[in-house]
Amino acid sequence: MASESGKLWGGRFVGAVDPIMEKFNASIAYDRHLWEVDVQGSKAYSRGLEKAGLLTKAEMDQILHGLDKVAEEWAQGTFKLNSNDEDIHTANERRLKELIGATAGKLHTGRSRNDQVVTDLRLWMRQTCSTLSGLLWELIRTMVDRAEAERDVLFPGYTHLQRAQPIRWSHWILSHAVALTRDSERLLEVRKRINVLPLGSGAIAGNPLGVDRELLRAELNFGAITLNSMDATSERDFVAEFLFWASLCMTHLSRMAEDLILYCTKEFSFVQLSDAYSTGSSLMPQKKNPDSLELIRSKAGRVFGRCAGLLMTLKGLPSTYNKDLQEDKEAVFEVSDTMSAVLQVATGVISTLQMPFRQAHEASGKAVFMAETKGVALNQLSLQELQTISPLFSGDVICVWDYGHSVEQYGALGGTARSSVDWQIRQVRALLQAQQA
Amino acid sequence: MASESGKLWGGRFVGAVDPIMEKFNASIAYDRHLWEVDVQGSKAYSRGLEKAGLLTKAEMDQILHGLDKVAEEWAQGTFKLNSNDEDIHTANERRLKELIGATAGKLHTGRSRNDQVVTDLRLWMRQTCSTLSGLLWELIRTMVDRAEAERDVLFPGYTHLQRAQPIRWSHWILSHAVALTRDSERLLEVRKRINVLPLGSGAIAGNPLGVDRELLRAELNFGAITLNSMDATSERDFVAEFLFWASLCMTHLSRMAEDLILYCTKEFSFVQLSDAYSTGSSLMPQKKNPDSLELIRSKAGRVFGRCAGLLMTLKGLPSTYNKDLQEDKEAVFEVSDTMSAVLQVATGVISTLQMPFRQAHEASGKAVFMAETKGVALNQLSLQELQTISPLFSGDVICVWDYGHSVEQYGALGGTARSSVDWQIRQVRALLQAQQA
Amino acid sequence: MASESGKLWGGRFVGAVDPIMEKFNASIAYDRHLWEVDVQGSKAYSRGLEKAGLLTKAEMDQILHGLDKVAEEWAQGTFKLNSNDEDIHTANERRLKELIGATAGKLHTGRSRNDQVVTDLRLWMRQTCSTLSGLLWELIRTMVDRAEAERDVLFPGYTHLQRAQPIRWSHWILSHAVALTRDSERLLEVRKRINVLPLGSGAIAGNPLGVDRELLRAELNFGAITLNSMDATSERDFVAEFLFWASLCMTHLSRMAEDLILYCTKEFSFVQLSDAYSTGSSLMPQKKNPDSLELIRSKAGRVFGRCAGLLMTLKGLPSTYNKDLQEDKEAVFEVSDTMSAVLQVATGVISTLQMPFRQAHEASGKAVFMAETKGVALNQLSLQELQTISPLFSGDVICVWDYGHSVEQYGALGGTARSSVDWQIRQVRALLQAQQA
Amino acid sequence: MASESGKLWGGRFVGAVDPIMEKFNASIAYDRHLWEVDVQGSKAYSRGLEKAGLLTKAEMDQILHGLDKVAEEWAQGTFKLNSNDEDIHTANERRLKELIGATAGKLHTGRSRNDQVVTDLRLWMRQTCSTLSGLLWELIRTMVDRAEAERDVLFPGYTHLQRAQPIRWSHWILSHAVALTRDSERLLEVRKRINVLPLGSGAIAGNPLGVDRELLRAELNFGAITLNSMDATSERDFVAEFLFWASLCMTHLSRMAEDLILYCTKEFSFVQLSDAYSTGSSLMPQKKNPDSLELIRSKAGRVFGRCAGLLMTLKGLPSTYNKDLQEDKEAVFEVSDTMSAVLQVATGVISTLQMPFRQAHEASGKAVFMAETKGVALNQLSLQELQTISPLFSGDVICVWDYGHSVEQYGALGGTARSSVDWQIRQVRALLQAQQA
Repeated sequence: MASESGKLWGGRFVGAVDPIMEKFNASIAYDRHLWEVDVQGSKAYSRGLEKAGLLTKAEMDQILHGLDKVAEEWAQGTFKLNSNDEDIHTANERRLKELIGATAGKLHTGRSRNDQVVTDLRLWMRQTCSTLSGLLWELIRTMVDRAEAERDVLFPGYTHLQRAQPIRWSHWILSHAVALTRDSERLLEVRKRINVLPLGSGAIAGNPLGVDRELLRAELNFGAITLNSMDATSERDFVAEFLFWASLCMTHLSRMAEDLILYCTKEFSFVQLSDAYSTGSSLMPQKKNPDSLELIRSKAGRVFGRCAGLLMTLKGLPSTYNKDLQEDKEAVFEVSDTMSAVLQVATGVISTLQMPFRQAHEASGKAVFMAETKGVALNQLSLQELQTISPLFSGDVICVWDYGHSVEQYGALGGTARSSVDWQIRQVRALLQAQQA
Repeated sequence: MASESGKLWGGRFVGAVDPIMEKFNASIAYDRHLWEVDVQGSKAYSRGLEKAGLLTKAEMDQILHGLDKVAEEWAQGTFKLNSNDEDIHTANERRLKELIGATAGKLHTGRSRNDQVVTDLRLWMRQTCSTLSGLLWELIRTMVDRAEAERDVLFPGYTHLQRAQPIRWSHWILSHAVALTRDSERLLEVRKRINVLPLGSGAIAGNPLGVDRELLRAELNFGAITLNSMDATSERDFVAEFLFWASLCMTHLSRMAEDLILYCTKEFSFVQLSDAYSTGSSLMPQKKNPDSLELIRSKAGRVFGRCAGLLMTLKGLPSTYNKDLQEDKEAVFEVSDTMSAVLQVATGVISTLQMPFRQAHEASGKAVFMAETKGVALNQLSLQELQTISPLFSGDVICVWDYGHSVEQYGALGGTARSSVDWQIRQVRALLQAQQA
Repeated sequence: MASESGKLWGGRFVGAVDPIMEKFNASIAYDRHLWEVDVQGSKAYSRGLEKAGLLTKAEMDQILHGLDKVAEEWAQGTFKLNSNDEDIHTANERRLKELIGATAGKLHTGRSRNDQVVTDLRLWMRQTCSTLSGLLWELIRTMVDRAEAERDVLFPGYTHLQRAQPIRWSHWILSHAVALTRDSERLLEVRKRINVLPLGSGAIAGNPLGVDRELLRAELNFGAITLNSMDATSERDFVAEFLFWASLCMTHLSRMAEDLILYCTKEFSFVQLSDAYSTGSSLMPQKKNPDSLELIRSKAGRVFGRCAGLLMTLKGLPSTYNKDLQEDKEAVFEVSDTMSAVLQVATGVISTLQMPFRQAHEASGKAVFMAETKGVALNQLSLQELQTISPLFSGDVICVWDYGHSVEQYGALGGTARSSVDWQIRQVRALLQAQQA
Repeated sequence: MASESGKLWGGRFVGAVDPIMEKFNASIAYDRHLWEVDVQGSKAYSRGLEKAGLLTKAEMDQILHGLDKVAEEWAQGTFKLNSNDEDIHTANERRLKELIGATAGKLHTGRSRNDQVVTDLRLWMRQTCSTLSGLLWELIRTMVDRAEAERDVLFPGYTHLQRAQPIRWSHWILSHAVALTRDSERLLEVRKRINVLPLGSGAIAGNPLGVDRELLRAELNFGAITLNSMDATSERDFVAEFLFWASLCMTHLSRMAEDLILYCTKEFSFVQLSDAYSTGSSLMPQKKNPDSLELIRSKAGRVFGRCAGLLMTLKGLPSTYNKDLQEDKEAVFEVSDTMSAVLQVATGVISTLQMPFRQAHEASGKAVFMAETKGVALNQLSLQELQTISPLFSGDVICVWDYGHSVEQYGALGGTARSSVDWQIRQVRALLQAQQA
């Protein structure tokens, strides 16, 4: 009974159970994403218990078999949730007991919800980091391929959105690709810190059964074990780092999106989005709205909001597990989904983008090359010579001089000259290769 | 075709349609919450069109009837979404056309998605504000009722978490209730700014059919119409304000939760949570974890994260509608749900909370009253006299002197003396009454 | 001695006093901004004490005179801080004692630092709100004046940064001005909640001397008194609200800045910034960087950061005063300074902005007016007639038809037709007048 | 003149120069912190120019000598700023020219403000990271030393702030120290990304003079050079990472502060703050307010606010340098100062903290050791035996059994058993040693 005396203040009746509280408390609506890693962690733990002499071989086999059964039901969509299954761990445990009886109870010996839940989350996020790394590499690779192929296309570079110096289109692509390589490097660092096993930390003081944590680590293929049980069950640095990683990556993508939204305007007219990534307007048929890019830009806010929210939740919490930490998972799931979609859409956008005036812009680049080959200054090329490159050259070739002459000045490493752009491409390719190793 | 030449950069194939982009773009997964207000807005608009001579009476009736049908299907759970229904507006429009044929198309005359979507959102949020106001009032009322009934319970007041001056328990309750009255006041102000009608603003330049916006306003019972069509379709101040309202309200509730979490510890032992709002631990049966309060405290982070995310999304956007604004709705829905649950759980917690030493604490208060009645100083009361109040009084009554003597000193308005606490209760009650008017 | 046993862990020596801690703790570096309001609050409080019979008339006069002396020293820059003056209140108190002797000590009777500091802050912020309201009104007025004068200039309206429908330049100006009127309205609401007096709340339990808080309120011209002493000394809603007000106002200004940065590009070329608000580049003399607008855009981040920081600081704090609250003031001072500069620079930018093609754009608007006057369709005007408006009209007047014809369609309230723009101007003017009342 | 026609909209007069804009634009008020690194960067660049044949040896020597002079003036406090010195770079350049004449101008050949400012910032932050690493190591070392010395002190461990399982005091210390080792690791990673040289990137397109960037890198002792000039001059990842590093580190310190604030309460009474880190109250002399800890807790908000602010400023910015980026420096300076103070104060707090009941708590630990040594169960020790440990043992030794028996159960790595605590100490010591290498 909520109140022994039966006296309640205010009008809201509350019995032994408040259904709104139950729902408020439950996490099954989202933590069911963890079904697979929960089974995986339990299998490893049961092996640890057997090694420690706390389960017989037969009990362990029964549990392992039962857990495989549970996983199978999830995989086939036949797992049935009860109304009492407040989280995925309870649900799997309950089902295991239905399947194999009392032995199921032994699986929880010396393991607490606190170390179980954080182990599951780390397993899930480790996999997600690998997936996102792959998507990020694909995006970078697409950008580098494109940069290499369109090296001779020149266009204006801006600072303060004012035309500043002509640059290679590839130099622009690479400026964003290089930013993304840092995200890729950071993601590997985040993954390294995710890949540390807390299992065997118990609720707070540690595991009381002398379970061999190195064995658990090896079973679950983690890089290391956590050092302190109080910290292990309540730190969420790896979540905060992941959310910040995503936030910073999104600021990069928001800046690239902003550039492309501008370049898609009638006024700039540098590029054209594929239909697959833009939307028409029924009222205004001339329009081709860059919805994909606007959504990418906007997601920087959402993702950062999750990072801000988690840090505020963590701030000032007392040591060890507090229920506040339950806020971690929805943030992780939402941000993972968002990043996966954003990276794939960005890859699609980049791979299908067209440059309406590519031929014209390329002509400048080729003229530079011809002048160099002939060992003359750019403005010493004759109109006939230029017209062998492109019929677009006419009497007025001043902009060609400006552009072509300009870009090749910037030959120091990192500049927009062709040699430097080639060097950049090699550098980024080498980085990618090193990271995938 | 994504690329005219068929050339794609990078490995990801993209045809005329990228399924990941489609999903990324679609909002139907969450904006279906708007089904009812979307129908409501459309009904009003069709009446506006008829008035403007753009629909015949018969056409209008056909549309109104069709829309009622659509609403009925949603209400009964029989509405079937198509895979092309990317948002609730498309879905309802499509269904209306299936039901009544070509006339349905006329409903969109002069209305754009941009003014429709923001009208729907305002209708939905106006209702939500009313609901949340009601829940907030109930929480405040519960607190005030309790403060009134338990006015004689004394306990230590803290600053810097160090014992400072004895106070009435009711003074503590009221300190939080008073904070919540400001949230209540602010929510009414936010609602006032939500309650402004953008319908009739078109996509950007306005409505080209001379629709009577005052008539639409009256139909939908808005307080005013928006002044400028460009602003009306793209400003999301009312969303930002609502999210900030919730964030500030949550910092209040997080502070109250923090106090109660402390007061529930074995060390403080002032109060005891009802079982309905706490959770036991299988490993440690002596524990009663204040999960409800921890969740309330944690939600301050989540809610603020949504506010932060929206502001970042808005920052630096160009004028008028950009797809980035689609981020508004999930934030609103999630925060509304969270606030609704938090306010109800907080009401439940407060209404069922017990004070283990209430009798002892109350004895001090009654002694103060007895001393006053008899016109003597508190320490002039005899032990016998005190024992008529409570058998708890023994030789050592020093703490009673300290406490009882202390609280009545603070008689200036706003202080912890009984007269002032009574005044506070009257003030808060009057505020509530005024706000509900 | 820091440690009785003399044992210290780690290498850092710490005596009775740690100079780094002293500096960490001190607020005088920034709270000296409050010198004037601190004197003002103390004067009112000494009058309250006299009324309550706690100071003689002579003592009060001595204190008032001494406080005037203190203020004079601050105003003339002759006030000398001691190394022990950790905050402005200590400094003023110390100086008062030097000037008038022991009577000074009576000023602190029944007043705590907790209610003093928050009273000072409210006094300061009340004044700041008035100043910022004035600057905001001046900005809005400038915009409305300009909108009125340049009503006939047409230019393309965009959604998704794609050209959508032609609009009046004034319609664009008004879209931003209307957003700012909401900021103005909100600032008045924030000021209303700042304008509530906490003085007489003591440290936590209230004022023990029966000081008449209504008298203090009247002395300091506050609108009301706070209801609960625990809440009064520790709530910082008014600070959070002010910081959020500024954040939302800055998102508006960041969006206006973004538009203008685009319109200043060579590609859009709609407007030109005055030299006073742009910067040249020595390397690239053709450039005119819109530094003023970029700074305005960027400050949205800084201001919001302060709001986020305060909310995080408040989250989960226990009741009543905790030293954490000391974080409030620097945020307020920095944001106030930023808003003051931003509003003035924005006013300067708007008032000096030029439209290079204003004549051309205006010609379209005048043609619409001529057609209306003559009662003919726009495309029935002869070239000669058009050339009486502007020599810019030549054979190719198609864009004029498009533009001029288009804008006048949007005659519903809030649209871009001239009648609606005039209505908007009247509405905004009326709002300003009402707010200044 | 601000407006050619002299026409100004609104009331604010603006001439060729708006003094508010000048102040808004200037950064000298804070970027003077960079004076030393600005000289250092310029010296390296002049060597690079000489190597590239763009300066003669004599010119270079003249410049180097002049720059040393400039640095000397700053160091001695004799450098005089002019009113035109809008930033530190202008100031140093101007002064160099006064000292050595026209040759000074050559220093700017091929270098832009954009690469200069970001080089300076990286130089400054590299040094700051080293300083902060040192302070962090000192804090961790202090904690580990203390953990080692007080290993036998037992006290209750909490989850959800409810007493859960007894733990060693050292286990608690180590839980926070271990969290800080992750901050230390992350800071090294941030430093690695700061330690990349952008000099030689020019304004956007690169350096046009073929300056040898590898030579500049070696001169300034950077780990690598940036890959792309557009990215190099406008990315502020390293700033965002640093601010986030500080934010996450502060959430750790805020959690430790929260624990200690609780443990300092009369109710918990586990520890006592040194006078150097607490403040008394004149009104309530019994109080000892933990101001140091509250300030540490609060700074988590401020620091995170700066991180949030920068990310919002970066979001959606177009490529390359925009003036918005000027917001980076104040954030970095403020956060660096805050972290330096917080780390030192935290070290002082930890190193001077006392445990009032240390003897009693230690007795339990020693009893466990005696039982182990004698090979008996704890409850088999006689009262006499126990009293050889401490006179505090009396008939009621149940809590000793509970505590002492309990902690030694948790022998798995990471648990609170003595062997595990010793292992943790060795692990953290080894980590520190590896990081300092």
